[in-house]
Amino acid sequence: MTTALPAAAALHEQAARLDADDPLAGLRARFLLPPDIVYLDGNSLGPLPAAVPAALKDVVRRQWATGLIGSWNAAGWWEAPQRVGDTIGTLIGAAPGQTIAGDSTSVQLFTALDAAAALRPDRPLLVTDPGHFPTDRYLADAVARRRDLKVRHVPPADLPAFLATEGEQVAVVSCSPVDFRTGELHDMRALTRAAHDAGALALWDLCHAAGALPLEVDALGVDLAVGCGYKFLSGGPGAPAFLYVARRHHTALETPLPGWTGHADPFALTPAYEPAPGIARARIGTPPILSLLALEAALTAFDGVDLAQVRAKSLSLTGFFLRCADALLAPLGFASVTPADPGRRGSQVALRHPHARGLVAALAEHGVIADMRAPDLLRFGVNALYTSHGDLLTAALRLRELTRNASYAPAPPSAGPVT
Amino acid sequence: MTTALPAAAALHEQAARLDADDPLAGLRARFLLPPDIVYLDGNSLGPLPAAVPAALKDVVRRQWATGLIGSWNAAGWWEAPQRVGDTIGTLIGAAPGQTIAGDSTSVQLFTALDAAAALRPDRPLLVTDPGHFPTDRYLADAVARRRDLKVRHVPPADLPAFLATEGEQVAVVSCSPVDFRTGELHDMRALTRAAHDAGALALWDLCHAAGALPLEVDALGVDLAVGCGYKFLSGGPGAPAFLYVARRHHTALETPLPGWTGHADPFALTPAYEPAPGIARARIGTPPILSLLALEAALTAFDGVDLAQVRAKSLSLTGFFLRCADALLAPLGFASVTPADPGRRGSQVALRHPHARGLVAALAEHGVIADMRAPDLLRFGVNALYTSHGDLLTAALRLRELTRNASYAPAPPSAGPVT
Repeated sequence: MTTALPAAAALHEQAARLDADDPLAGLRARFLLPPDIVYLDGNSLGPLPAAVPAALKDVVRRQWATGLIGSWNAAGWWEAPQRVGDTIGTLIGAAPGQTIAGDSTSVQLFTALDAAAALRPDRPLLVTDPGHFPTDRYLADAVARRRDLKVRHVPPADLPAFLATEGEQVAVVSCSPVDFRTGELHDMRALTRAAHDAGALALWDLCHAAGALPLEVDALGVDLAVGCGYKFLSGGPGAPAFLYVARRHHTALETPLPGWTGHADPFALTPAYEPAPGIARARIGTPPILSLLALEAALTAFDGVDLAQVRAKSLSLTGFFLRCADALLAPLGFASVTPADPGRRGSQVALRHPHARGLVAALAEHGVIADMRAPDLLRFGVNALYTSHGDLLTAALRLRELTRNASYAPAPPSAGPVT
Repeated sequence: MTTALPAAAALHEQAARLDADDPLAGLRARFLLPPDIVYLDGNSLGPLPAAVPAALKDVVRRQWATGLIGSWNAAGWWEAPQRVGDTIGTLIGAAPGQTIAGDSTSVQLFTALDAAAALRPDRPLLVTDPGHFPTDRYLADAVARRRDLKVRHVPPADLPAFLATEGEQVAVVSCSPVDFRTGELHDMRALTRAAHDAGALALWDLCHAAGALPLEVDALGVDLAVGCGYKFLSGGPGAPAFLYVARRHHTALETPLPGWTGHADPFALTPAYEPAPGIARARIGTPPILSLLALEAALTAFDGVDLAQVRAKSLSLTGFFLRCADALLAPLGFASVTPADPGRRGSQVALRHPHARGLVAALAEHGVIADMRAPDLLRFGVNALYTSHGDLLTAALRLRELTRNASYAPAPPSAGPVT
């Protein structure tokens, strides 16, 4: 049995000690995790924060049912995109007034890419990561087609050299600090500086970073950023995404989607669009208030939380899981594609195995929820707010058992926004 | 006292009789309306349908908390945009597979306008109503700028003549069947035909029509339509909007926002965008599931409801309110701007009065919620699913009292998506 393995016994001891010493252990109570489930897919969909049900009930039963239309003012619905944006701003290092929340990541990305291109006219290249999440690539292509630009795919590792030679052609560099497949962490500071040295703008997709590690968009001079609300922010399925635009760009910012809520005087209902001052001009239509206020309630799980501690625990968790994988899974053909160097690791571990699909399905049947990325990656996301080292050992041991016993089968393709 | 007015006494009698004979009276129980409030602003934000709280609780406590990521499949989240779209389709006369719900009206409009223009290349004009809701105008301008088209503003009454002379230049005609200020109803059949006779596409904004009157987008040959979820559909604040594209255009449909959920094989995560077959290609990013499933629950208020009966009652309600206004309010300086001809009337009545702003605020303080449109329109929306004739008489009598007693003051500008 696995518990008889000497390696497992040592790992049990390590997990128990690390969890006992965890200064963030108490935060797990801020989430309503199902018992007997090890949830390692919070990088796709965060679990339900304990604050959400009561907040949502208040939104529905009091604000909507009783306050009716008056709640746009009285309950602060109208300002919610900026208010929630500012709260997210505290997690990404953005001073107030530069971040809004409301539409999907794809829509915000379209706005960001198009607006960035408009801020650097006469530069014909839009640079993105060939490993970028598909929607980032599709929308870069769409914006390029529309604006008669060219898209160049450059891996982050090659960006400095590319920018040093062709940088003068580049309008905007769009990439993510964390590779959604491998969990590799790129150097935001160096890449932002390289973009700026070339006179280009830096646009970051923070979907796999916001809430998982400290970010400093203001301090690094990031120009624009987007990120989703439903991964490490645990805002619920399809929670609205956020858009950050550095204040220095606000006056010149032209949104491709000039909806009425971004108008300088939305209730004057004037015939011509006049953009609101500040980040409000990036608002589009009426935001989905129930989803947006659920996200706002979810963000209270970060109240008083030090993101440096989150990062330290996240690295402890992924480092421990890599040790588990090395001791328990490598002999069975699993290979990590996540950097062992903590400085190059986001908040997930991805293991390669030819039966990834069947194994992830079998794991779910045995109470461990991870996900997979075709063709052969098993992805294990950790969230320092609720994941324990014990969770990860459980996952590794169950995966070992299922693999040794060949207790898995070809499974249908996974579905859902498991990005 | 008002009750001593002979006119009021007769109107009381009429209201009581009409409400007693109302075959839809029982539907009011499908909404959780606050007691002692007369709510005539459902054309801005519908009230809470009784089915929503339990449905939303299930989404949050069972589907999200317990089902976690698996609910994208198990709870049908992934198909929700098409499923909710098809349900809305039954209210607008669209056969299944042509309607989706998910983003805001403004975003859907951008998609519709841009895709329509692309379907009629070499035609340089985009025609819209000068009285159209601002976001329709702003986005028409944005699409025209982007595609190097020109926008022409033509009132619906002048459209047939305009199209007869300049129609060959027109790519798309975008207007609304119901004027959001005056409540005037335009002839969708005739205007759609006029657009088609000119070889142009007809794009309808159904925000003020869907759920309020029978619509026949398929039968009329409408090309594209959008509409919002939070007015007559009562889907909640910022409920997702819908987009209809007639099946004959699906193959050629190019969305300006090619997000990953509209991909033919979204989970293959391929580098290049390949549009899904059918209306699914108009999907963009991950939809706001809490708001979307609240809308889905709200739509059950229409279960088994005959929209012809809804229309008949709506006309009875607005006709009765016009009689109330004539008898009780005209002597105090109120003038209706809503057509008296039932065939030209949507589901609202708008009265002009120089103190509209102060009066609407005073009405709200006295339990009657209407809204206003600058500078001088009081707007009273009726929804046959829950409005009674008695409600409207109460509103008229209170308005009369407040006006006679000059019990109103300048009020701050109203705010909120009261469109």
